[in-house]
Amino acid sequence: MRKPPREWNILEAIRQIIHRPHPNIRVPWGDDAFVFRNFPGYSVISQDMMVEDIHFDLAYTTASDLGYKSLAGNLSDVAAMGATPHFIHVSLAVPKKITESWLDEFYRSMTSLADKNSCQIVGGDLTSSPDKLVIDINIHSSCGGEPLTIQEGRPGDLVLSSGPLGLSKVGLWALQNHQMDFWECRDAHLRPCPRLDLVNELVSKRPYVKGLTDCSDGLLQDIYSFMNPKKTGFEIFADQLFLHPEVIKYSQQAGKNPVDIAISGGEDYELLVLIAPENLNHFTEWQMVGKLNSSREITVHEKGLKRILNSLEGWQHF
Amino acid sequence: MRKPPREWNILEAIRQIIHRPHPNIRVPWGDDAFVFRNFPGYSVISQDMMVEDIHFDLAYTTASDLGYKSLAGNLSDVAAMGATPHFIHVSLAVPKKITESWLDEFYRSMTSLADKNSCQIVGGDLTSSPDKLVIDINIHSSCGGEPLTIQEGRPGDLVLSSGPLGLSKVGLWALQNHQMDFWECRDAHLRPCPRLDLVNELVSKRPYVKGLTDCSDGLLQDIYSFMNPKKTGFEIFADQLFLHPEVIKYSQQAGKNPVDIAISGGEDYELLVLIAPENLNHFTEWQMVGKLNSSREITVHEKGLKRILNSLEGWQHF
Repeated sequence: MRKPPREWNILEAIRQIIHRPHPNIRVPWGDDAFVFRNFPGYSVISQDMMVEDIHFDLAYTTASDLGYKSLAGNLSDVAAMGATPHFIHVSLAVPKKITESWLDEFYRSMTSLADKNSCQIVGGDLTSSPDKLVIDINIHSSCGGEPLTIQEGRPGDLVLSSGPLGLSKVGLWALQNHQMDFWECRDAHLRPCPRLDLVNELVSKRPYVKGLTDCSDGLLQDIYSFMNPKKTGFEIFADQLFLHPEVIKYSQQAGKNPVDIAISGGEDYELLVLIAPENLNHFTEWQMVGKLNSSREITVHEKGLKRILNSLEGWQHF
Repeated sequence: MRKPPREWNILEAIRQIIHRPHPNIRVPWGDDAFVFRNFPGYSVISQDMMVEDIHFDLAYTTASDLGYKSLAGNLSDVAAMGATPHFIHVSLAVPKKITESWLDEFYRSMTSLADKNSCQIVGGDLTSSPDKLVIDINIHSSCGGEPLTIQEGRPGDLVLSSGPLGLSKVGLWALQNHQMDFWECRDAHLRPCPRLDLVNELVSKRPYVKGLTDCSDGLLQDIYSFMNPKKTGFEIFADQLFLHPEVIKYSQQAGKNPVDIAISGGEDYELLVLIAPENLNHFTEWQMVGKLNSSREITVHEKGLKRILNSLEGWQHF
């Protein structure tokens, strides 16, 4: 009897890790495509690629960290639409240095994050790679009502964050420089938490949400989502910005301004909400970031001084 | 005014190439995710990754060929479900050697194939790569009725092909060896035609379709889809197999049996249908491949002789 190809054995091992029953699945992994019954409302699709030595370094990222993180970033996009994730496709280009036990750990970790967020891996592709590991993740989500989108704000509109910024950037530095303290920042970099926990709240406050996005590339880049570069500027309220103690500690060590770390760091995966100023009372647990204005500049207001920012320091992958 | 990141300019150029209006689109490319109104029936999702120097060689594959081919292989999976494609997400990891004009040509070619099949590119990701080009494509399709799936056949069931096999393998050889004739095989390799043209016919013949898949890895691998290795074997009717003149010509030059080329070559993207023998009259335009039996062997029956195949020569990417 002829043997089926070697790839099938690996795929079967992965299938056993990821398999979960789901009432909407009509044709599971194993056919030419995955088939499911639609969820009520709109379909929401996000897709993100991560490349070794561009987005991650296997020297200080374990299989478990990477499995977690590569899904987390994509789930953050789902949260930023006010949507609920369901089905995940994962494509991997795998170099020879990656072992089957590495893949096992990668998929177990990713599956545990999927489980926490009531979604599941259902398919994808697995192929070899001459050199670098490449991960591409597609998530099918749904939203029952209208999605919470990026919208252009008007001067006076406020931008709030669901949490502190800059931790991931400091965590990356700590990992690269073998700084064993900075635990929270290291964790924020390796195990960022997609804010799907806020979706229900945001959907219930839909009338007050003018715009929503996630802070993945760094505030100084993501803030453009709410701006019209020809009409609006943005002032950052540095004195009101919540600064994490570890970000302050790192800044002191490095001789930097912690505000600059917070606003230029990427991969924090907090949500940024755009609201009209009169609705601020509906977002008391959110952290103030700043305000749109008509200056056509991005400025930092700190201790009575105003700085105009002219260079872009956000997270750039391309 | 601060400049938005460089990536945005490239993305805007791509957006202009791919943009098509569509009544189901609620949130187009540019937000954290793509949002659309569901199509009637089931959702069908396929995802395929292609890696430079594993699946393609840029030495003899143009941007245009690659844009076409990487989508074609995935559309073949859609056809193999009896589904209709709608929305395509394309992720690219792009090394420095790839120019903006190369990307332009790639997306134009892919878009032209999408146009031909009434679907469109709506999102994805674009990132840099240290070395190799990687393409991952996800297609959201729908089927109004039940999908046409892979099913295990019974001894006596027939397998038919929608077209001749082995052309792509010969085409690859011709390209690698600078053989300027073998036009049809070269074209079959570079511009394979996903058989979405057969979906309506297959859906209308649903009661007679026991199983359906596409011939992407080579018949000797894809035939396993219809087999239970513990119960069934498969006999290939070599004398009835349609052999393309260029496959015969190559076989003569190379001193090989053209039947072996046809059954072991991959990437032909013809459809393979499994039917009960009494329904053969509904598939008169399909080409006979062979018959399931209870032998637990894959055999070739040619000119009165029977050969048992013991080694797997199909297309292996992993």
